[in-house]
Amino acid sequence: MTESKYNFGMIGLGTMGRNLLLNMADHGFPVAGYDINPDQVAGFEKEGEGKPVKGFTDLKAMTQSLTKPRAIMMLVPAGKPVDSVIENLLPLLEPGDIIIDGGNSHFTDTIIRDKALDTKGFHFFGMGISGGEEGARKGPSMMPGGDQGAYLTLKPIFDAIAAKVDGVPCVTYIGPGASGHFVKMVHNGIEYGLMQLIAETYEILRKGLKLDNEEIYQLFKQWNEGRLQSFLIEVTRDIFSYKEAGSDHLLLDDIKDQAKSKGTGKWTSQIAMDLEVPIPTIDMAVAMRDLSKYKTLRKKAANLYGDQPSLLEVDKDTLLESLEQALYFSMIMTYAQGLDLLYRSSISYGYNLNLADISKIWRGGCIIRAAFLREIYTAYEKAPSLEHLLLDESVVSLVNESVPGMRSIVASAITAGIGIPAFAASLTYFDAFRSENMPSNLIQAQRDYFGAHTYELIGKDGVFHTHWTPLPSKP
Amino acid sequence: MTESKYNFGMIGLGTMGRNLLLNMADHGFPVAGYDINPDQVAGFEKEGEGKPVKGFTDLKAMTQSLTKPRAIMMLVPAGKPVDSVIENLLPLLEPGDIIIDGGNSHFTDTIIRDKALDTKGFHFFGMGISGGEEGARKGPSMMPGGDQGAYLTLKPIFDAIAAKVDGVPCVTYIGPGASGHFVKMVHNGIEYGLMQLIAETYEILRKGLKLDNEEIYQLFKQWNEGRLQSFLIEVTRDIFSYKEAGSDHLLLDDIKDQAKSKGTGKWTSQIAMDLEVPIPTIDMAVAMRDLSKYKTLRKKAANLYGDQPSLLEVDKDTLLESLEQALYFSMIMTYAQGLDLLYRSSISYGYNLNLADISKIWRGGCIIRAAFLREIYTAYEKAPSLEHLLLDESVVSLVNESVPGMRSIVASAITAGIGIPAFAASLTYFDAFRSENMPSNLIQAQRDYFGAHTYELIGKDGVFHTHWTPLPSKP
Repeated sequence: MTESKYNFGMIGLGTMGRNLLLNMADHGFPVAGYDINPDQVAGFEKEGEGKPVKGFTDLKAMTQSLTKPRAIMMLVPAGKPVDSVIENLLPLLEPGDIIIDGGNSHFTDTIIRDKALDTKGFHFFGMGISGGEEGARKGPSMMPGGDQGAYLTLKPIFDAIAAKVDGVPCVTYIGPGASGHFVKMVHNGIEYGLMQLIAETYEILRKGLKLDNEEIYQLFKQWNEGRLQSFLIEVTRDIFSYKEAGSDHLLLDDIKDQAKSKGTGKWTSQIAMDLEVPIPTIDMAVAMRDLSKYKTLRKKAANLYGDQPSLLEVDKDTLLESLEQALYFSMIMTYAQGLDLLYRSSISYGYNLNLADISKIWRGGCIIRAAFLREIYTAYEKAPSLEHLLLDESVVSLVNESVPGMRSIVASAITAGIGIPAFAASLTYFDAFRSENMPSNLIQAQRDYFGAHTYELIGKDGVFHTHWTPLPSKP
Repeated sequence: MTESKYNFGMIGLGTMGRNLLLNMADHGFPVAGYDINPDQVAGFEKEGEGKPVKGFTDLKAMTQSLTKPRAIMMLVPAGKPVDSVIENLLPLLEPGDIIIDGGNSHFTDTIIRDKALDTKGFHFFGMGISGGEEGARKGPSMMPGGDQGAYLTLKPIFDAIAAKVDGVPCVTYIGPGASGHFVKMVHNGIEYGLMQLIAETYEILRKGLKLDNEEIYQLFKQWNEGRLQSFLIEVTRDIFSYKEAGSDHLLLDDIKDQAKSKGTGKWTSQIAMDLEVPIPTIDMAVAMRDLSKYKTLRKKAANLYGDQPSLLEVDKDTLLESLEQALYFSMIMTYAQGLDLLYRSSISYGYNLNLADISKIWRGGCIIRAAFLREIYTAYEKAPSLEHLLLDESVVSLVNESVPGMRSIVASAITAGIGIPAFAASLTYFDAFRSENMPSNLIQAQRDYFGAHTYELIGKDGVFHTHWTPLPSKP
């Protein structure tokens, strides 16, 4: 029998699980990892040489190697794999042990699992982890929600491994129930939006301005030193300089333009619709990942309609300046939409989310970390119950400074025929958002006309119905 | 005991249920209606005076009044009410009787009910009915799916009451399972898109061109006589002429700009995301209904950002001509997106949908009937397995004719700051759709960079992963 000496167990030694454990070990915590695949276990032990780590291919042995109460995290694909792991795990645990789902589970699944495990006497919490491969190894941003006592037991470990910004760890207790996974899902929705916006920027640079990859690299490098500074811009910069050994061109140019996804962006859009929160930039990012898969169809359409957009007829330097404004403006809209969803979910689900704390832990470690998060954090720290990010005074200034470039880019790209769906969605969202009067009175009138769905009147309580035209009136 | 002499029973005598029964009675079918509310029953009998109709407040008596096998339709709000009606109804029926859900049930509920009722020996089918109040009374478009034998038994009744176009009834068997409700849901999704586009047209006319209501009325009247001819344009025309007795202004001007919804548009977007079908115009229509509810927030934003858009700096007649093109172009995109969803759902769910038949029955009776449906019908009749409406030769011509006006309107409105989210979504969808190369290779590279999600290469099988930058590389 193995001596019980490890403080933390991990199920699933893929990139994320392995790196999180190595990160813990670096901070002096003895850790155990389990994977069904012996190669993963061997790889983990090899990478962990000289550190307090131990790998297992036997789940029971792994659980027995842990100090009590045991703390075990699962990092397995969302859905059935999570339930199947829990089923195998439970007979090997004792009441009081802590199970953590560190994956991207759908928050509605987390609610069900939370209740089931609680009934059986186990502690359970769902924790969103962002930062990818590198974040897991060097310091991720973590969003734990659910059993607060269990989280506090493990807080020293998470504080130690988390990314730090100004010395503050990028992890905080999010709230009850599935709020940790919910917040992580919205984080990913924002990530989808930002990635699509950067891709559209590339589209404008490549097709509109005919910049070559080296020029694009220089531009992202320069932008990453300004207010656009962010992990995703940094990643993009690196991609625009990466060639495989011996190759004379970027790896990027060889990659298929079909974007995959694992569902979190889609879930964000679907749930926003249930909560009646408009997040059109994120919706569009989801739709464009889907459209990217229509490769054969797009090829046919390109033949029928032509896909060579006209050149943008604008001075290059002016356009690049506008483009920086456009990307900044659209990034603000994307964060604003995501935070609006958090604000309203918090009311609907009783999460009592602290948006200042959440934007604080997003400043480091996670995929959507960006210089702009300082502005967001400051806004919510100043006004914790701020109803919408776009109402913050400093944000108003930033938006107003950027809107001229935004309009000019969208109008030029529209005229030239360059596909910029998420840019356009961001700007039109803003224009509708700042409309005291939307044309939706007409929609209500139409609904009442054909479906007797009633309407409301300005300055008068109640609902009303009108026979807009006498029946039968139409030929 | 009542004599069993009525051919058709209806549960729910709201506008739709009452009108459908009166329609049947007009065609000589003796019909029975039940409602829990005696006023509804009395209203029904009064409207049906002199016709073979009978109202009941006792469900059992209604079922006993029907010829066998009984045919009973429910027209009650989607969700629990449908299950509760079924529960009350079953003890009063005999195996072999036919139950029809004529409401807007979510198609996943219909699947469950279909199985449960089949097991108990009842015939069940879900039937989407469109046409609103007037359609129900004078001739709706109907989309039955599920038990084909049961539908065929009742076909004479539905053929008789359906709207007719060139003598052909606007009803046809759609396919197995919940396909009838699915197709009706997508019909409603298209409806959401079209309504939002018309509302944005109003926004441009009102805020951009400062047209008064009479001018707007004249314009919609004129448009309804051209290729834009459609039920929704006709409705809009009427709304722009309707004043309450004694009022000096349009009722429209008194209606709150907060649009309600019953969920079918939202379901369409949510399911399209599950099926990975991009329908951004419809997504945007859903988002804008949600944004319309943010009245207080929009008022605050208008104060902070200003909501007086600049005037469109274009000659008025040119602009109106472009606007007609823009609306036509966007309508085409909306139908194309909806039909794409039907095409792909048919593959995913095995519905074996006949898109020619479906566009044929949409030509009359339903809310989205429009002159353009002739083009759609012709396209699918010519090529039943057409992969996407935008690939049809005639549609290509119509799109190419309209795209200059579309670009000019969107660019002008973007520059002026007028909110046109669904217009922009339609055009940017088109531009991305006709891109042989999207910038999504960058998204895949980013996903692989930070999450080791792998990528695919052009002309080379397999999936690949790259360490884009050696770990640890970042400060």
